[in-house]
Formats: sequence, structure tokens, C-alpha cells
Amino acid sequence: MQNKFAKRASSLQPSDMRIILTAGERPELISFAGGLPAPDLFPIEALKAASEAVLSEEGPASLQYSATEGYIPLRQKIIERMKAVNIPAELSQIMITSGSQQAIDLTGRLFLDEGDTIICESPTYLAAINAFKTYDANFVEVDMDEDGMIMEALEKRLQENPHTKFIYTIPDFQNPTGRTLSLERRKRMIELANRYDVLVLEDNPYGAIRFSGTPIPPVKHFDTEGRVIYLSSFSKIFAPGLRLGWICADQVFIEKYIALKESSDMHTDGFAQRLTSKYMEQNDIEKHIANIKAVYKARCTTMIQCIEEFFPENISFVKPEGGLFLWVELPPLMDSRKIALECLENNVAVIPGGAFFADKAKTNTVRLNFSNTSEERIKEGMKRIGKVLHREMASEPTHIETVTLGENSLSTSS
Amino acid sequence: MQNKFAKRASSLQPSDMRIILTAGERPELISFAGGLPAPDLFPIEALKAASEAVLSEEGPASLQYSATEGYIPLRQKIIERMKAVNIPAELSQIMITSGSQQAIDLTGRLFLDEGDTIICESPTYLAAINAFKTYDANFVEVDMDEDGMIMEALEKRLQENPHTKFIYTIPDFQNPTGRTLSLERRKRMIELANRYDVLVLEDNPYGAIRFSGTPIPPVKHFDTEGRVIYLSSFSKIFAPGLRLGWICADQVFIEKYIALKESSDMHTDGFAQRLTSKYMEQNDIEKHIANIKAVYKARCTTMIQCIEEFFPENISFVKPEGGLFLWVELPPLMDSRKIALECLENNVAVIPGGAFFADKAKTNTVRLNFSNTSEERIKEGMKRIGKVLHREMASEPTHIETVTLGENSLSTSS
Repeated sequence: MQNKFAKRASSLQPSDMRIILTAGERPELISFAGGLPAPDLFPIEALKAASEAVLSEEGPASLQYSATEGYIPLRQKIIERMKAVNIPAELSQIMITSGSQQAIDLTGRLFLDEGDTIICESPTYLAAINAFKTYDANFVEVDMDEDGMIMEALEKRLQENPHTKFIYTIPDFQNPTGRTLSLERRKRMIELANRYDVLVLEDNPYGAIRFSGTPIPPVKHFDTEGRVIYLSSFSKIFAPGLRLGWICADQVFIEKYIALKESSDMHTDGFAQRLTSKYMEQNDIEKHIANIKAVYKARCTTMIQCIEEFFPENISFVKPEGGLFLWVELPPLMDSRKIALECLENNVAVIPGGAFFADKAKTNTVRLNFSNTSEERIKEGMKRIGKVLHREMASEPTHIETVTLGENSLSTSS
Repeated sequence: MQNKFAKRASSLQPSDMRIILTAGERPELISFAGGLPAPDLFPIEALKAASEAVLSEEGPASLQYSATEGYIPLRQKIIERMKAVNIPAELSQIMITSGSQQAIDLTGRLFLDEGDTIICESPTYLAAINAFKTYDANFVEVDMDEDGMIMEALEKRLQENPHTKFIYTIPDFQNPTGRTLSLERRKRMIELANRYDVLVLEDNPYGAIRFSGTPIPPVKHFDTEGRVIYLSSFSKIFAPGLRLGWICADQVFIEKYIALKESSDMHTDGFAQRLTSKYMEQNDIEKHIANIKAVYKARCTTMIQCIEEFFPENISFVKPEGGLFLWVELPPLMDSRKIALECLENNVAVIPGGAFFADKAKTNTVRLNFSNTSEERIKEGMKRIGKVLHREMASEPTHIETVTLGENSLSTSS
């Protein structure tokens, strides 16, 4: 049999990360590798009640085929959530997706022709890169600092790339860096999008998980021409296993998304939609989210204390105000893939940061997830990583040099 | 703002069918339009117990992110189902999808380059045509008779179209015609696929709903070279709202499907997967399916009796041995879209058959769904359609001519 795959299938390679993520299933292993919410916080008992109510009150409808755009009461609750972050929206502007990953993928499919350019943060969300790659898009990265994507660099990229279709941004507690785009830059991003006539894909799954600092309205709040497509999800505030996300965008876009989703998977699990909607009627989800934030804040604080206590001095990191991730920069010549493999041998998993770069990888970076591990195990895991880093630095004298890695960096000494 | 959509988005037009399907929500309307299973048969009480058990026994795992390929115990149960239809399969050959619609869409994305040809039955499943269209494929139709796709015609099409990527077939109780591919033709299809080096996409959601006649092994049973990709679903035997389907194919294909699904939606709802798996542990799904078959057989029989009683004589139809649909051919010059709109005015919905043709539409055809309506309402709805047909035939003398419409046809007289 000759090769039958389409050309686009060639970008579908098993990722480096798979090995590390799969290892995460060994019980003796402490994993900071995934992007998993804390499972101990899932509202199991409340879901039992919600499930019983949905099946009793609307069983047949919850199990039957249903509308592609999603269950109206859930979409209405999403409108309320959007209003709370200063985005007015109508029902015709909201479509439910099978997780926000599907929203990312549908966006690629709806807007990207071969040769189109996506401008994204450097680094950015790995699974978005993978989805967009199947549409033969070009990636152009924009450097970040502590306030997120640098606007002067963004404008330069827009000038250089007339075939830019959209700017892809994760403004709040970005994956993988944990950085947040500043208020001024959000306004500036909209000005630039308007001037250069490009769309903005705002991927905002973490915005509700702010545990310190002051909330900033989403980029879409500043949208004057309906060119921001806003994505979010119940995965981080409720339960990722149910695969519920949403798109909020102008009706002209949503109509096309609906037609595309219809041929992609008909509709998102109607039982999961009703279950989530019922849960929100029977419980105060804000109280639940407050609980998540308190736990994540404590875990993040513990992890930062551990970096300061156990890691060598010539390491810099970003202190996030929310979300799930800490981003660590090792000395410039250090290869974090090697470190990650050595960590794995010592029963602790981390993700080498190189995977998160669409174009030129900074291979001295590491992403650490703090949401999915208890404080006690965070301490133990960080101690193990610290030992690996100290050993590695001692054995490789080329790494002992003074570097500056931005605001958060510490001058090296080792 | 300039038009931002990708070229492929131009195929995403709201379909004729939407109007009719949306109308299906009016309570006074009797709808034979959708492809909906009978909601009164959904096992609500058993699902309450299964939901309670899943949340009690494995709540956190069921709500957390999980493996893209699907929940292992459910995949094992699928292997058992595959074995029962004479297809041996291993775990590495099964991937769970978000309904078999997603399997169809992923197949298009994995295998179709621009300009590739798909050979399909004429007519065929509308939502598959729509999914494949977004990959710029060409459709080549093959005529059917009462034994399904005609193999001489298929071979001719294979000869004429060297860029054929796959044959798309729904062998059992095809949507929309209700026809079943004969045993001999299944063997012949494999011979031709081997000779012309093309894949076969076997879409088999209805096979388990056989209510008369003798079961025939799936096309994949005769596959000697691993070139048949078999799709099926829990939608027709359990609950479509949960969106659970599967792909059974060689491991080399499944690995690429997994990578593609990961970037498409990460994984299918893990709670729905465990719910279905738990249901199958706590209940005999075969008993449930037997019940579905008995009800559908009665409804199909009633609908056929109504055609004979209420419809004009110059109408032919296919008598299915299973599935959800009856296919009706009106006299050649009659426009079923006009009939469908007139039916809608009389509070009965049908789907004009023209929509199911990928290429050249036969506009004198109608698809009737019998699974979703009680026998009493089937009688009332068919009476209404009969009146519309009689009136239409009386008013348009051009239609009164003698035609032959194949084996099942009756010579016209009116």
C-alpha cells in the first residue's frame, strides 16, 4: 500500500512531551509536567446531585442530539461570566466548544490559508502551535518581557508580515510563562490590530484564576471593530474532563463556526453541558473558584519558596499573579531537555521549555505546574530538581558565568 | 475589515435542511426529518445509577484530563463488540471519538489533499459530504441498486479516477436509502480496493440495529491488507447526546489519528466515556439494543403500511432490514423540495432527498425517519404527507406518466 496520508499529516509527530506526560502516571513520580487542575477540588458531591437532577428533569433531552451552538441556559450563564469581565455579549455571539482546544483548532480551520502568518508570543501554548501547524501557517514570534508581548516588537512584525491573519495571545497568566499582558499593552494591541487589519485570537482560560494583583479587562473589552475572537473554558474553573469551552465573537464569525463545528462533531456532549449548567444553578461557582484560587496561591507560593531555597542562585523565574504555571530560566547554555530527563530518573517530571517556542527555541527554559501537586509533594519534588540542577552546574563549568535574564533574574555566581 | 475567512470556509453554507430541522422543535409538528433515535428508550434510570457509581468510585479521574485515545475499559468493550461482528482488534487499533462525525472529519483531515477523489454511494450521508468538502475533495458517485453500491460502476469509477483516496461506504441500512451492501459485493469491494490501492472508509453506525433478515459481516471483516478504516458509534445503540464514537483501524493509522485528535479537542469527554462503560458493566446493553430493534421494526412496519395505504400508487420505496430510514422515490419530475415545504405547512417534516447527493441530485426523492415517532403519530404524519402528494399529483398533469424506478417501483397510473 502506498502512503495514503495527506501532506498536512506530516506535521503530526509524537511530541517529546508525550514521554514525560505518560511517565506522570507512575505513582512514585512527582509531576510538575502537565497543565492539570487539582483533582481534589472537583465538586464530586455537587455533581452527583446535578446529574440526578438533569436525568430526572430532562433526561431524554440531555441524551438526544442537540443544537450545534450549544445548550441555551449554559450559553446564558457564559454571557453572565463575560459581562463580569466587561465584555457585553448576546446569545448569537456565544458558541459552546469541546474544550477551548477545539475552539483553537476551529479557528485555524476557519481562518488560515496556506502561507498565512500567525503572530504569537514567544514562547506560547504548545497545543495551539500544533493545531495551527496542520493548516500550514507560518509562525512569527514576538518577544515578551514581564508585561507580556512587547508592542514595539509586535508592530515591527506586523509591518514585516503583510499576510498576518491574526495575533494569537494568552493575556492572563500565560501558558507557559505565567506572564500577564499589561493594561496599556492591551489597548495598544487593539490599535495595532485595527491599523494593520488583523484579527486577535484571545485565548483566556486562566483569567478567572487570579490569586494576586489587580484584574485587568480582557483584550476583547477594548475591541472597537469586532476583530477579537475570545476563547475560554470550564476546564480550569470546573472540570476539564467534561471538555467544555466557548467562543465569544461577532455573530458573522459565530455563524461560520457553527457550520464548521456541525461537520466536525455535530455538537458538544449535551449531558455535560446540562450537568455544568445545573451545577451552576444549584451551587455558587464563584465560591468554588475562590477555593481553587486560595489553593493555587498557596501551592505557587510554596513552589517559589522552594526555588529560592533549593535551586542554584543563577536561575531566574517569573512570579505569576494567577494561573497554573511557573516559568524558569536556567543559565543560557544549559539544556533543559537533558535536565528534564535527569529529573525523570529522579522521579520528578518537568517540561523542557523549548517545546513552547513556535520558531526559535530557548532551550534553557523549564515550565513547572504547581496546581496539581500538594504543598508537601511540591517541596519534595523541588528538592529533587534542585539536586539535579546543582549537580549539573557543578559538572559543567561552561555554565558558570554571569548573565542577566531580565527583571526577575539574579546575577549568577554558582 | 477585509474578509478574513480561509478559502475552505466558502463551502460552509447554512443548509436547506436547517430550516426543516429547526422546525422540528414545534410541538404540533410531526417530524420524520432528523436522524434521531427514540428518546423514550434512553435508559435514564440505569444512567442515574451509573453516574452515581462513576462519581463515587472514580470521580476525580472521570473529571480530569485524560488520554486522547480514550478510556481503556470502554475501548476493551468496543473490542468485544468488534469481535461479535467478526473483526478482531487490539487496543492499539481503537480510538474513541466525539461521535462518529468526528471520526469522519478527522479522516478527511488525515487523508485528503486538495484534488483527491472520494468515491461514494449515490446518494450518501449529508454530513460526511459537508465535512469532506472543507478539504477540497472531489466526489465521484456510484449508483446503487437494492444490493447497495454497484460493483461494475465502482470499478469504472476507480479506473477513471487515479487520484481516488478512499471509497466511502455505509454498508448497513445506509443513510439515506436504508439499503444494505450484499455479502458478495463486500468481498468484491475489498478486491477492488486492493487492486486499485485505495482505502475504504466503512461508516457503520446502524449495523447493530438490524431488525430483519440475516446479518452480514462488515466490509472490514474481509480486509486483507489493513486498508479498511471502520467507524461506529454509541449514538444509535445508546445515547447520541454523549457524543461517543470510535475508529477501528490499523495501528499505523490510529497513531496519526491520535496526534490529530490531540490538537483537535484533546480527548472526548471522559465522564461520558466512563458513564457508558459503567452502564455496560451494570447492564446488558444487548438487551437494550434488542428493545430498540423491536420498537424500530414496529415503527418501520407501520410507516410502510402507511405508504401503501395513504400515498399515491406511483411511488417507490426501499424496504430496509434495519436502521432508521425509509427512502421514497416520487415520480421523476416531481420536486421533493416543494413537497417538503408543503408538508411543513401541514405540520409534518420530511427531508428532500436532493441534499444527499454529492454531485448530481435526484430531486424526486424523500428521506423519512421512523425511529423518532410513535406509531400513532407516524400514522397521522403519513396521512398528512399522503394528502399533500395526492393534491400535488392532481394539480400537475405533467407528472402523470409511466415510469420505472427499479425493482421496488410500481408503474405509475395516478
